[in-house]
Amino acid sequence: MGEIKLPKGFKSAGVACGIKKDGKKDLALILSESEANTAGVFTKNIVKGHSLKWTMKNIRGNKIRAVVINSGNANACVGEKGDSDAERMADLTARLAKCGKEQVLLGSTGVIGFPLPMEKIESGLQKAFSMLSTSPHDAACAIMTTDTYPKEISFDINLSGKNVTLYGMAKGSGMIHPNMATMIGVFLTDAAISKEMLQKALTEAVNKSFNRISVDGDTSVCDMVVILANGMAENEEISCENNDYATFVNALEKAAVMLSKMLVKDGEGATKLIEIRVVNAPDCETAHKITSSIAKSPLVKTAMFGQDANWGRILTAAGYSGADFNPDLVDILIGDLLVCQNGVGLNFDEEKALEILKKDEIKITVDLKIGSSEDTMWTCDFSYDYVRINGSYRT
Amino acid sequence: MGEIKLPKGFKSAGVACGIKKDGKKDLALILSESEANTAGVFTKNIVKGHSLKWTMKNIRGNKIRAVVINSGNANACVGEKGDSDAERMADLTARLAKCGKEQVLLGSTGVIGFPLPMEKIESGLQKAFSMLSTSPHDAACAIMTTDTYPKEISFDINLSGKNVTLYGMAKGSGMIHPNMATMIGVFLTDAAISKEMLQKALTEAVNKSFNRISVDGDTSVCDMVVILANGMAENEEISCENNDYATFVNALEKAAVMLSKMLVKDGEGATKLIEIRVVNAPDCETAHKITSSIAKSPLVKTAMFGQDANWGRILTAAGYSGADFNPDLVDILIGDLLVCQNGVGLNFDEEKALEILKKDEIKITVDLKIGSSEDTMWTCDFSYDYVRINGSYRT
Repeated sequence: MGEIKLPKGFKSAGVACGIKKDGKKDLALILSESEANTAGVFTKNIVKGHSLKWTMKNIRGNKIRAVVINSGNANACVGEKGDSDAERMADLTARLAKCGKEQVLLGSTGVIGFPLPMEKIESGLQKAFSMLSTSPHDAACAIMTTDTYPKEISFDINLSGKNVTLYGMAKGSGMIHPNMATMIGVFLTDAAISKEMLQKALTEAVNKSFNRISVDGDTSVCDMVVILANGMAENEEISCENNDYATFVNALEKAAVMLSKMLVKDGEGATKLIEIRVVNAPDCETAHKITSSIAKSPLVKTAMFGQDANWGRILTAAGYSGADFNPDLVDILIGDLLVCQNGVGLNFDEEKALEILKKDEIKITVDLKIGSSEDTMWTCDFSYDYVRINGSYRT
Repeated sequence: MGEIKLPKGFKSAGVACGIKKDGKKDLALILSESEANTAGVFTKNIVKGHSLKWTMKNIRGNKIRAVVINSGNANACVGEKGDSDAERMADLTARLAKCGKEQVLLGSTGVIGFPLPMEKIESGLQKAFSMLSTSPHDAACAIMTTDTYPKEISFDINLSGKNVTLYGMAKGSGMIHPNMATMIGVFLTDAAISKEMLQKALTEAVNKSFNRISVDGDTSVCDMVVILANGMAENEEISCENNDYATFVNALEKAAVMLSKMLVKDGEGATKLIEIRVVNAPDCETAHKITSSIAKSPLVKTAMFGQDANWGRILTAAGYSGADFNPDLVDILIGDLLVCQNGVGLNFDEEKALEILKKDEIKITVDLKIGSSEDTMWTCDFSYDYVRINGSYRT
């Protein structure tokens, strides 16, 4: 992987404009020298933030030049002012970037229900433009809320002889901020790829990564993942499912899975990353119903926190998932330790179980033995700190 | 309500037979002098305990004489021995009660995956038969797992001039025991009512009570609610939806709601009972999707623990419920304090909010303003103690 870097033609900045009371960075700017094909995946929550709505509207028909994301106060659930604030942010960015305002995407994360401090954002934007650089790090920091560290990754890939760079940043933390905003992911690449193939690649990658993680099962009103591809690597444009497309989507999926795992590891109060795999299922949908049910079960998650090899809770969560399977065939492994065979608990080695459960990363495998499909999800444990972070009275 | 008592013709006992290591009562026996019409509602989990399967099989075609419930070790996920143990328990009970083994219902709650200690249960059953009395209290204690107190209720109702008694007991705690067993409810009545009308009444009452509570969203493999009606009150048998049926189903629903609220209040780690009401919904299904999503949201539940009037998490949980509504119309009240109007947060009185949130019982109302249907659910808050109880390593 080497050094984390932006692809050709991208610059970014991250500044503290005063939204966050503690003086931390809270405004990220990403600029592409040339117009970029863009794709996005957005929250399915029917309540949608104002900045998100701006992005969803303008991503459709426009080539994009800039992305602006503020943290500390989500532009959501504040009425009409939220829509006009979004437009003002895009407009100011457009004037500074010399592009159309419809070429600016917005993201916003933090407490909802409070209007954005627009004067702070406007002067922050001016400052950000004056500080643009080829390092993505400040921008990755500026999108954080309760994240304890920035999540970034970059790869170089080879597309038919041309070197292409893929960069990604994301923030959680816990899919959801305490006052409930936003998982945000931004990918940047200098690959030349058509808008259609870019959307296809992003959707594929997100389904195997960001849509396969759960911290608390809640889905926010501002969740979004976008990708900008400005074509400056000068590879032959990917416009169908050729070898270059396969290489690109593999890299994107790899980057997205790595960022997703970072999100879960840094989930609110998380002490462990838990990988849940269902194998030998009759179909992918069945497998996913079960991984999803186990990944969301508070009882499984507290058991993992307590280092308890409680296969009963795992089997139970599978049982109420709505998936159709034969419980009398199910094997369950924690790490490589078989703890339940054909639906019946085994007298397993408790010491070996504890050794596995003490680790920071735990794998749970559920073998349905009725097919050949599988699904994987990642979740974290449920600790005292989750309650502390989310249960503390807002001040 | 007055004194809690069994209906005519019922006796019960609760003994400590040694399943629970702390010497607490762990075997409940309920006996009806005469054959009782019986109805039941069972877990939808496709994994089902062995004792539960026995009950589900035999409740269909038989008049019932006895119910035996053990706590401390659920008869679930132990393979064929589980089925033969269930049959042995029913058979021994039948011999002592002088009835057919198919006339005995079983319940079982506690850790799953460990075979029942059958010698203890067999001597416990003999002891229970020697201690039968007209007080239900010992039996209500003997079905407890992590419950901190027994849940019982009884009413007298008048059916066309005849006095009829309805008794109910239930155990949680948290729908689910730490090692994942069982919400159990048992109703007993001396009313004369046909099996069909009894099932109809029970299903109606359960849908408005036990199916409207959530502690952690997990559904166990042994959940069951059964009702026995032995007809000894000598009222005219209820066999259609007449006035007596209405009186009976009202009383049953009232008893079931009261027991359900007790279960939630005594949920694992619970410090508050939270009532969630969705009003003015286009239909009941929409309303229920939303109450259910809010009741299960860890972010809403931790906010209530933290006395945080976080309407944003409530609106967000409504938004991802899958229900179709217009977020720009939604009002949210915490207690009688309007905190969100037309989907936009208000500058509400934080002190008044804190006063409401400090109480043991909190009402949340979500007004969709698009119809006239409604739904109510009860849940509890999510506290450090939930994590402590469910995250402690099993010893």
